[in-house]
Formats: sequence, structure tokens, C-alpha cells
Amino acid sequence: MKRARIMVASVVLLLGAIATAWAAGEAPSAPLSEQTQACLACHETYLSGIPADWRTSRHSMTTPAAAQAKPTAERRISAAAVPERLRSVAVGCYECHSLNPERHKDSFDHFGFRINVVVSPNDCATCHPVEAEQYAPSKKANAFHNLKDNPVFSSLVEAVDSVKTVHAGQIASAPATDATRAETCYACHGTDVTVAGLKTVTTPLGDLQFPDLTGWPNQGVGRVNPDGSLGSCTACHPRHSFSTAIARKPYTCSQCHLEPDVPAWEIYRESKHGNIMESVGQQWNWDAVPWTVGRDITAPTCAACHVSLLAGPKGDTIAPRNHDFGGRLWIRLFGLIYSHPQPKSGRTYEIRNQDGLPLPTTWTQGLATSYLIDQKEQEARRTQMRQICASCHSTDWAEKHLSRMETTAAETDAMVRAATDVMTAAWDQGLADRSNPFDEGLEQMWVEQWLFYADSVRLSSAMMGQDLATFEHGWWSLTHNLAQMHDAVKERAGPH
Amino acid sequence: MKRARIMVASVVLLLGAIATAWAAGEAPSAPLSEQTQACLACHETYLSGIPADWRTSRHSMTTPAAAQAKPTAERRISAAAVPERLRSVAVGCYECHSLNPERHKDSFDHFGFRINVVVSPNDCATCHPVEAEQYAPSKKANAFHNLKDNPVFSSLVEAVDSVKTVHAGQIASAPATDATRAETCYACHGTDVTVAGLKTVTTPLGDLQFPDLTGWPNQGVGRVNPDGSLGSCTACHPRHSFSTAIARKPYTCSQCHLEPDVPAWEIYRESKHGNIMESVGQQWNWDAVPWTVGRDITAPTCAACHVSLLAGPKGDTIAPRNHDFGGRLWIRLFGLIYSHPQPKSGRTYEIRNQDGLPLPTTWTQGLATSYLIDQKEQEARRTQMRQICASCHSTDWAEKHLSRMETTAAETDAMVRAATDVMTAAWDQGLADRSNPFDEGLEQMWVEQWLFYADSVRLSSAMMGQDLATFEHGWWSLTHNLAQMHDAVKERAGPH
Amino acid sequence: MKRARIMVASVVLLLGAIATAWAAGEAPSAPLSEQTQACLACHETYLSGIPADWRTSRHSMTTPAAAQAKPTAERRISAAAVPERLRSVAVGCYECHSLNPERHKDSFDHFGFRINVVVSPNDCATCHPVEAEQYAPSKKANAFHNLKDNPVFSSLVEAVDSVKTVHAGQIASAPATDATRAETCYACHGTDVTVAGLKTVTTPLGDLQFPDLTGWPNQGVGRVNPDGSLGSCTACHPRHSFSTAIARKPYTCSQCHLEPDVPAWEIYRESKHGNIMESVGQQWNWDAVPWTVGRDITAPTCAACHVSLLAGPKGDTIAPRNHDFGGRLWIRLFGLIYSHPQPKSGRTYEIRNQDGLPLPTTWTQGLATSYLIDQKEQEARRTQMRQICASCHSTDWAEKHLSRMETTAAETDAMVRAATDVMTAAWDQGLADRSNPFDEGLEQMWVEQWLFYADSVRLSSAMMGQDLATFEHGWWSLTHNLAQMHDAVKERAGPH
Repeated sequence: MKRARIMVASVVLLLGAIATAWAAGEAPSAPLSEQTQACLACHETYLSGIPADWRTSRHSMTTPAAAQAKPTAERRISAAAVPERLRSVAVGCYECHSLNPERHKDSFDHFGFRINVVVSPNDCATCHPVEAEQYAPSKKANAFHNLKDNPVFSSLVEAVDSVKTVHAGQIASAPATDATRAETCYACHGTDVTVAGLKTVTTPLGDLQFPDLTGWPNQGVGRVNPDGSLGSCTACHPRHSFSTAIARKPYTCSQCHLEPDVPAWEIYRESKHGNIMESVGQQWNWDAVPWTVGRDITAPTCAACHVSLLAGPKGDTIAPRNHDFGGRLWIRLFGLIYSHPQPKSGRTYEIRNQDGLPLPTTWTQGLATSYLIDQKEQEARRTQMRQICASCHSTDWAEKHLSRMETTAAETDAMVRAATDVMTAAWDQGLADRSNPFDEGLEQMWVEQWLFYADSVRLSSAMMGQDLATFEHGWWSLTHNLAQMHDAVKERAGPH
Repeated sequence: MKRARIMVASVVLLLGAIATAWAAGEAPSAPLSEQTQACLACHETYLSGIPADWRTSRHSMTTPAAAQAKPTAERRISAAAVPERLRSVAVGCYECHSLNPERHKDSFDHFGFRINVVVSPNDCATCHPVEAEQYAPSKKANAFHNLKDNPVFSSLVEAVDSVKTVHAGQIASAPATDATRAETCYACHGTDVTVAGLKTVTTPLGDLQFPDLTGWPNQGVGRVNPDGSLGSCTACHPRHSFSTAIARKPYTCSQCHLEPDVPAWEIYRESKHGNIMESVGQQWNWDAVPWTVGRDITAPTCAACHVSLLAGPKGDTIAPRNHDFGGRLWIRLFGLIYSHPQPKSGRTYEIRNQDGLPLPTTWTQGLATSYLIDQKEQEARRTQMRQICASCHSTDWAEKHLSRMETTAAETDAMVRAATDVMTAAWDQGLADRSNPFDEGLEQMWVEQWLFYADSVRLSSAMMGQDLATFEHGWWSLTHNLAQMHDAVKERAGPH
Repeated sequence: MKRARIMVASVVLLLGAIATAWAAGEAPSAPLSEQTQACLACHETYLSGIPADWRTSRHSMTTPAAAQAKPTAERRISAAAVPERLRSVAVGCYECHSLNPERHKDSFDHFGFRINVVVSPNDCATCHPVEAEQYAPSKKANAFHNLKDNPVFSSLVEAVDSVKTVHAGQIASAPATDATRAETCYACHGTDVTVAGLKTVTTPLGDLQFPDLTGWPNQGVGRVNPDGSLGSCTACHPRHSFSTAIARKPYTCSQCHLEPDVPAWEIYRESKHGNIMESVGQQWNWDAVPWTVGRDITAPTCAACHVSLLAGPKGDTIAPRNHDFGGRLWIRLFGLIYSHPQPKSGRTYEIRNQDGLPLPTTWTQGLATSYLIDQKEQEARRTQMRQICASCHSTDWAEKHLSRMETTAAETDAMVRAATDVMTAAWDQGLADRSNPFDEGLEQMWVEQWLFYADSVRLSSAMMGQDLATFEHGWWSLTHNLAQMHDAVKERAGPH
């Protein structure tokens, strides 16, 4: 019986041919530009995995003109007008890698074609300007600068990534290397991709010249591109299928949002929503635009609540598409010492709190209010999110869920405050050195209190995880870590 | 090409499902009651995700009468007689949410219908009485009371969940809030859902009155329902598909049974069984009743060994369905200080050991024998479990596997005993305060020895995990944690 | 729409019938030998899961003769000649369990047939000699001996697995039991399976005699089999489907290669490659031979880079199949104190470093050069791996990726060296006892520096994980653990 099913599945391959004809409305045989044909002539031999992946993409099967002809709600392209030369051909190699060469420091001559190595959000904006505009001012787009240009966080990066040696019984540090930074914090936040000139690379076709990129490879969300734009669409829509479905799968978000500092993935996975997705998600329609609650999906993924255009069964919009990933959120739950209202601007390094530090709160919970969204905006976003919940849960259910989360934000803030009080006492008593607040064992325990454990409990509350609120980096860890900090300070202070 | 394949594959899946239903005389267009039609008239607009999910369910496609007409082994309904008004309609909104209103404190008038918010195991028992009767006396059904009414465990909950502050260099605690309890321990164990009266909720249809529930939302396995019954069938058969397949997937169990305290999920996932499930499980028949070993599945999931009606290829019963989840088990491996025979009653808070504590062993391994199943019952359950193994493994293989697990239970008990001896010495020497055994750093290390590490090794042995017996919370942690407890006590005792 | 679906249904049914005939070239009804028919006559009742699983296998559907008739690149059988009696029957129970009885100490009489309990790599070599020959000299094949016969590592096993008790305030150890060793380190490394004689087992068919195996059950990669051969093909090709697809799925490798000591699985899962696999892998062709990059798979799995025969779209070989799992690697990144060139021989217990220890480096980073592959061999392997990357990434991209990894190996070595220096100072000052370097709390912190954290960062670099290079056992842990070791030594040394 099972074998019979497998055999039928094989026949599906055969049916593909028939289906190709059916799907003619989608123009699966979209014409290729001459230039793209030239690219493929070599690259289906060298780098053959890329064209093969691209051939699975919508880009290879449709044209901007066909994409624009769809009803508004189903449209995957947001440009009012697409340049004439691109309108009626497939979105191929040359169509993307040749855009805006004057802005691209990574533009180079490749067998007579002017090619950019890196395709940037500004290039994607040719067809997808609304998404690019939503993304550009977001925290994600600014993720490189939010780390690099915030002295508090860049000193944390340095404390972590610097190479330590032991001399005369003391730990000494050599500066972190670019290679290590690019593989750790900046792997997700994005690197600064610059062009150091041209270099010669030996290839199967002989020696060729290519731009010599620094900070490369990288697909971080706040990557600084050689054309000056910020971000990398391929962080979530990976090359070269640029799939909507992949971006909607929680595995995508899990590349960066995972234990211990942002355990969104683990919490989702252990939640009822994650269980349903893992159990029956293979029967969902991951690619539909709009994404219809209950029909296309029977539980939300990250994208459903935070990004996608969600619709009800009668085509009513539950939430419009929003590529500012924090745009539906009112409280900020992770990555900082205390929870706080979302910042007004995605350039969080510009914030100044009452102590003059680029942080949204002081270390004693004072809010940098003028940099944070006001009550009205918080309320509006909260209402939108509650409406998303209310697609499948009663208003009362949703309200009680959200209000629990707000209680939790306050309680975890208190648990962090207790640890901060222990830390401050240690600094005051000279049992630790506050000059760099991140480079001693005790200080690192304090960091774990907010960056690991409070974050874990708050995100668990938001997404209905259970163990990550309890034993796995949850209240257990908040409690145990505080006790251990307390014991360490007492031990160090010695007998009185 | 691939998309075409996906399209066709979806059609094939859809047709497969429909054809299966048709062939079985399952009446995919089961008639809806007038009341359910009225529910859907509004709720396919408001809360539309729920009806959409329900429409994927067997409940929406069949009637109790049709379900009863099946051969005994294939029957998914255990009632000898179903009330006449329910027999010939689909199991819709009204059919479930209107049952036993006299018992439901959450019963309210909703547009002229008497509706219960919460559907309870007692309601499900209308059609599934055998499952409800198996479940009711189990440890799972009593999970709320087993925590709340056991002073040892409720003091652990309080030590973990209380909000701590630092005053004059000492840690002080404010009582844990209901919100936090409901999100942590009681998220899995279940909350006490009570009705505080009616409240007015603003909805798209205007202001409406609904019961104001406390301890809500919750789907814990021992939930105390507004009708007095215990448990939540949707903990494993989530709303509103109530799917057998989902309950059989290990993702369901993983919502509560995961690292670090009950790492059953992680162990299963890293086991050979879990590998086979992840690798080829998408080709299995997850919905078949009975579940035939080798034909429907080629490796067990949690449900296969612990719950489901398992059959051999000739229809012979390997193990009958059992919704008392511990009913096939003889040793209890997790959640307590030492391993011990399974308790006779699911109300474990009634146990009294020789020290008068509600625990199955004393802290020096003395068994509360009269509360635990006897040798004969242990043997009977062990034989049943070995027969399940023996569906795919030789008798000798299975026997050696089980006997290894019993050795491991004894050895991990010894490793816990060593930690308990260190702890007791610290208490005796005044280096820790035994008045609350869970609220100090050293005491929490002791808790981790049994609640995290011993549990991990024992469950790894039972389910053939490897790393969770070794480095990840395994023997490595049992050994290292003991050494660290020992060092901490020595340090604290100071030089002699 | 509905009519369209009915049309598709007809097409599917029609094609289903065609497929049955079409697949006949694969001989799904391959003739069974008389002996195998006899096996099945009983075992489709007793142990029925095994025949059912086997019936899903290629072994049950084809014959060696048919397998040999395929074009070379597609061939799954490497024997030039297969014994006549096996050529034209399915590869059934008897065909495998009867091989080379003279070598098998576990050979026994079973209802008149001479049967071996354990099928070994030497038996599989009857049809798959090239794979067996590649495997035999590998580190994997020697994994049992590499642990058992290396006194450094076997003392680590003993430190971890020994049962501890507390006497007079001191921790004492009783030797680890075989049961525990077999469930922990040797679960992956393999046990020594010996035959203690015959024993009588009570079965449904009465009392029967079977070989009494020690170290059983086990499927470790370096298992010592009763015929003297090393390894277990079923470690990756699990019984009784012996599936190529399962072996290519990362879940298989994840059984042993996971957190915290070899977090390859977690790193792959959080990488872009893993995301793509989890998101769209269900559409891949997991069974194709050769495995074509871009067409069969759009991202690599473990097997793609390390084992499988990889081809380009025109049938060109990108990398030949290699069952020496380290055969494509030049640096060795995990399991030892410092990174180093791969060893020449898979029998690593034969290595002697400058201090006379069976380790590839001294504790101060001196390389045991004569036992390690030379520069030229390193370069050749590195080039092969870069070519695999270059199937989908530019030469420059791949080169920069690999060179980053080499930087990381050096930096993590420095971070381990710093911890070693702290440890050595503690030993020198009598603050720890170097006689067993693994049995004290401080020493175990040092072990975690190399075995957990350095390994995690190096593997993250190699496979483009992010969090496992940063916060989860990454640079954060390298830094924090070093600080904690330093603090512990300072505390212990006391005030000066």
C-alpha cells in the first residue's frame, strides 16, 4: 500500500509535464533575455547549482508584466512601473546582477558584461519598492550600525570575540579579528561589504578578475552593501529560488532567532502552534498570496504574525504585509536589559537615555521615553496583533494572553533588576571592575540574567512556550543565576 | 517545473483524502445540525480560523452513527450508545459546546443558545467514554493537584516562580503570581479554570457578555475544568481538527516532555527511532486505526509505545489503546529524586513515605512501598512493553535493552544519592539552610542532579538516546555537578 | 474547478496503473530464495515489523544481477562479481544472515538453517566491497579501539561513567559498568560484541536457543563484530530498509554528531543550508544515484559534502563516493584539545606525540607531525572540498569561507591554550591534582573549553552556523568559562 503510494508519487514527476501546460497562465516558459542566456551558457556548467535552483523559482517562470497583471491582493510585485527592458522577460541572472551599476562599487567587467557581485535591497526595489521602503528604516536594516555604532554593544562584541591569553596569571586580550566578528555577531547583524580592488582568481576558464570583497561572504539582515544600501533580502529569501514559502517557514527565522539570546525558534517549536506546524504543515499552502488563515494554514508561523499579508476566508485583510519586522510590535522583549516600548526609529544607536548611554533604559529601569513609541502607537499595534490572534481565538482569550505577557515583562524586569543590584553592589565594593561591564565572570552572569533568561521567559510568554519559561533558561535560571551571583559576591567579600 | 509538481502533488493528496473518506462511506458531506449551521453563519466570518480547521477534521466529515458502524478494531468511538440528537449529524460546534450545561459554570447565553466555553473530557466522554475513563484516574489527569496539593512540589514551584528583590544585600521573595504560575509549571500541569462571573467584551458585533474565566487560556493535561472534570483532550488532540495523527506525532508530546527536566523529545529525536521517523515518517500512515507495525509505521513514536492501539500485520492486537499514559510502565524514571515503581494511584499527592512526606521515596531511597505497584504488576507491564519492542526486535534484544535500563536506574539513583549526601552534610554543618530545600544556589545544584541529569540519563537509556546519556545533561553532568557541589561545600567550609 | 479535480483524479488513477507496469524494470516482485521464504513464513508473524520494513527496501525489490546491469554512475553495487546463488534472487533475510558462517562466532542453528545474528560490514562487502574497503581503515571503523585503546580517552570515559559515592566527605568512584559504557560513549563508538555461548529464550514458539551476545544491542560505527570485522553499516543505513535516502538525511548523522561535544547537527540545522533543507527538502530527490547538485538537491546535507557521489547537471562527477567519512577533510576540528591536520591512519590510538601520549598534539600545541597528513595531501583535500562548495558558490566565495575557517581554528586553539595555561598553573601550584586530568571540577571546566566550546566554534565556522559560534557554546562560552576558571583558581589560591 505504501509502496503503491510511493509509485504514484513518482508518477507525479510525469504529470509535471502535463501540469506545465495547465499552468500556462503563469508563463512557466517565460522568455529569457539574451544576456541571461549568455550567463546560463557558461554557468549551467560552472556554478551549476545556482541556475538549477533559480529554475525552481517564480523569477524564472514569470515576467514582471505577468506579475503586475494579477489582482491587487494576489500581486507579489509592488512597483507601479517596471523598466521597459525588464517587463517581458524572466527575472534572470542579468536582470538582477546588472542593476544600478553606477552605485555599485562591486561592479566589474565580466566577459563584456557589466556585472555586480552583490544584489542589494535597492536593486530588488526595482520591482519590490514597497517592501524595500518598509524594510529600509527598520531595526533589521540597521542591525550592523546598531551594533557597530553603539559603544555599549560594540564593547560587548569585543569582550566576547577578543582572543585571550594568560600572562603572569592574568587574562589579556588581543582585539577580535574581522573574520571572527563576521562569523559571530555580524553573521546575523550583517557585515560591511567593501571593495578592496580587483583580484585575479584562477577558475576552470583561466585567470579572471573579480572585485575583492571584504566582509564576504555574508547574508546578515543589516549588511552594508557595496552600493550603500542596507540589508540582504536573501537573509530570508535565499538564493536563488527567492522563495516566499521558505521565508514563511520558521526555519528561516531560526537561523538567527534561537537559543540562548533570542530563543524564538525553540519556543515556537515547543508551542502548540509549532507542534501543529510540524505535524500537519506539509499539507499547508505555503506559497499563497494572500495567506488565508484556516484555509492555507491552521496555525501561525513567525511570518504569519509578524510579516505576511494575512486574509480571512472571504478575502478580507486581517493584516497587511509589513517588511518592518517590528512594525506590529509594541513592547520590545529581547536583546536589552529591560523590556520597553518599541523604539520610534530603527537606528537604535541614536537613542540616549538619562545617563547619556545609547540604550532605551537606564540600568535602573528609567525609560528613554522620547525615543520610544507613545501610548497611542503602542495601543494601535497591540490592537492589530490582538486581531491576528482573534482569527482563531476569542477576543477574551487573546486579551488575556496579551495581558499575561505584559505582567511577565514587568516581573522579568524585576528579576533583572535584582541581579543588577547585586552587580552594582559588587562594583561599589570593588569586588568587580565596572570599567568594562562585560569582561569578568561575575559580569557575564549578570549579562546572562537579561540576555538569556529574561529574554527566554518573555518570549515564551509571547508565544506560549512552556519549558523555556520554566526550566530551560526560564524562571529556574533567573532564580538560580541570581542565587549564584549572590553567593559569588558573598564568597568574594569574605568573612566579616 | 517543481511548482507544477507541488501543485499536482497537492491535488493528489487532496484527492487521496477525499477518496479515502468516500471509500469508507465516511460521508464527507455529513449533515450539519441547524444549531451548528447557525454557529458557522457568524463564525466563518468572526473566528474564521476555527471553522476552517474544524472542516479538516473527521468530526466535520462523519457522524457518530457512521463511526459506530465500523468493525470494532477500526472504531474511533467507544460509546455503546450515542444520544439520539447527535447520532446522525456531523460533530459540529453546537454538538460539543452545548453538552451537560448543568455541570458547566462557564455555560452562558449566546444569541439564544446555551453555550459552554470550555469543552471538557467529560463532554468528550459522550462519544469516547472508554478513553475518558482510562484518562481520569491517571497521573496526567491529576497533574494540577499533584503539584498544587503536594507541599514539597508546590514549595519548589514557589521557589522558582517567586519574584525576587535584593534588600540590604539579601534576596527577598514576593509570592509568585497566578499569571506566571499559569505560564510555567501549570502550563503543562493545567490550571484551575474558574468562572468569576460574566464580563462584557467589545466585539465586531457589538458588546457581548461572556463568562470571565480565570486560569485561562490553558490546555494543560490536568486542567480543572468549570464542570469539575480534570484534563484537556486538546492538550494532545488540538482544536479544532482533534486529529489522531497530530496526537501520534512526537511534536505533540514534546510540548511538555523536553529538556532539561523531561528530555523525552530530545532523546527520541536523537535516537534511531526518531531518525527514521524524521527521515521517512512523511510516508507513514499516521491516521490508521488500528496502527499496524511495519506497515503503517517503520519505527515507533511516543504514542506507539505508550498509548495507541497497535496491531500486527494480520490484525492481531499487540497492545490495546490505553489513555492512562503511564499504564504500560513499571518504573517511574523522572520528576522525582530517585527512580521507583509506578504509583498505584494517579493522585500522587496522597502518597506518604516513611518520613511522612508526599513522595514515593525518602531522601535516602526508602520506598513508600504500599503506594507503589507490586512486583507482579511491574512484571505484567514490563512483559507488555517487551512485547511491543518484540514487534521489531528479537526477544533477547528487547530483554537486554530493558535490563540495561534497570541497571541505569540503579546507577543514576546512586549518583543522586551521592549529591544528596553532600547536600545533607552541608545542611548539617550549617552551610545551607534546610528550612526550604529549594531556594539556595547549592540546593538548586542538588535539584539539577536529580531533576535534570539523572532524568536525562534514565530516559536516554529507556529510549536509546546517546548524547543525552553522555555529555548533554548525561553522565558528564552528573559527574561534573557532583564535583562542583563538593568543591562549593569545601570552599564554604573554609580552611581547617 | 470541481470538474478539473475529477479530471486529475482520473489521470492519477490511470497513471497509477501505468506506474505499476513501468516500475517493473526494477523488479518489485524480485524472486525470493526458498530459504528467505521460509524465514518470512514465521517472521511475518513473529518480528513482523522487520519483514514489513524490509519490503519497503530496494533489497526486496531487485536482484544483484539487475543492480549490476545499470550504467556505472547509477550503480549501487560495487562488486565485480556476485556469488551465483545470490545473483538472481532478492536480497532477503537468508541472503544476508547466512554469509561467511565460518567467521561468525554468532552463527547458530535455527530450525535447520545456519544463521548469523549480526550482519557485518564484511558480509555487506559481498555486494558492496568498495564501500567496505573505504570504510575499514577509517577513524569511524576504528572508533571502538580509538577510545578503548587510547589510555587518555579511556580514562576520560572512566572519569565520566564511574559510579560515585561520598565517604567521609570525599568522592569515591566504583568502576563504570559495561551497561553504562555501552549506553554512553560506546553507543556511538561501538561495543565489542562477543558470544558468551548459547542461551535458551522463551518465545511464542517455545524455548529456543540463541547465541548469548555481550555488548548487545549496539549499532555504533566502530562496533567489533563477532566475525572480527569493524563497524555497523546499519548505524547509517538502518535496518531493514537499508535506505540510501535515510543515510543522506542529516537526522542520521545527528544521532551522534550533536551538542555539546560535536554540535554538527545543531549547526547544520541553524545554517542557511539546513534551513533550505528543512523548508523544501521534502521536494528533493533523496534517492538518486548519482546525486545531482541543483537538480536533486538545492542545498547540501552532511552526506553531500562528506560522503556521496555528487554529480553536475551534465553527469560530470563533482566528487566520487567516499565511505571514509574524513577522507575529504584536511583539518580535524573536534574531539581533541587543539585542531590539527587529519591523521594519516584511522587507528588514532597508535599516534604518539612528543610527550609520548597517544594524542595528535601536545598540551602545548606541538604537532605529532609524522602521524598527520602532509601539506600536499591537505591541499588536495582542501581543493576537492572547495570544488564541492563551488557547485553553488563562486571560487572567491568558497575560498574566503575556507580561509575564515582556518583563522578560526587558530583562534580557538589560542582560547584553549589560555585555559590550558590556567589549568597547568593550578596543577603546578597544587590547587588541582594532575594524576587524573579529568576527575576534578576545575579540570572538567578545562575539558569543556576544548571538547564543547572550541569544537562548537570551529564546526560553526566550517558549516556557517551562527549562534553556536556566538552565544550557544560559542565565543561567549570560551570567554566566560575561561573567566570562571581564572576566578576559581584565584579563589582557591586565597589572599596573598
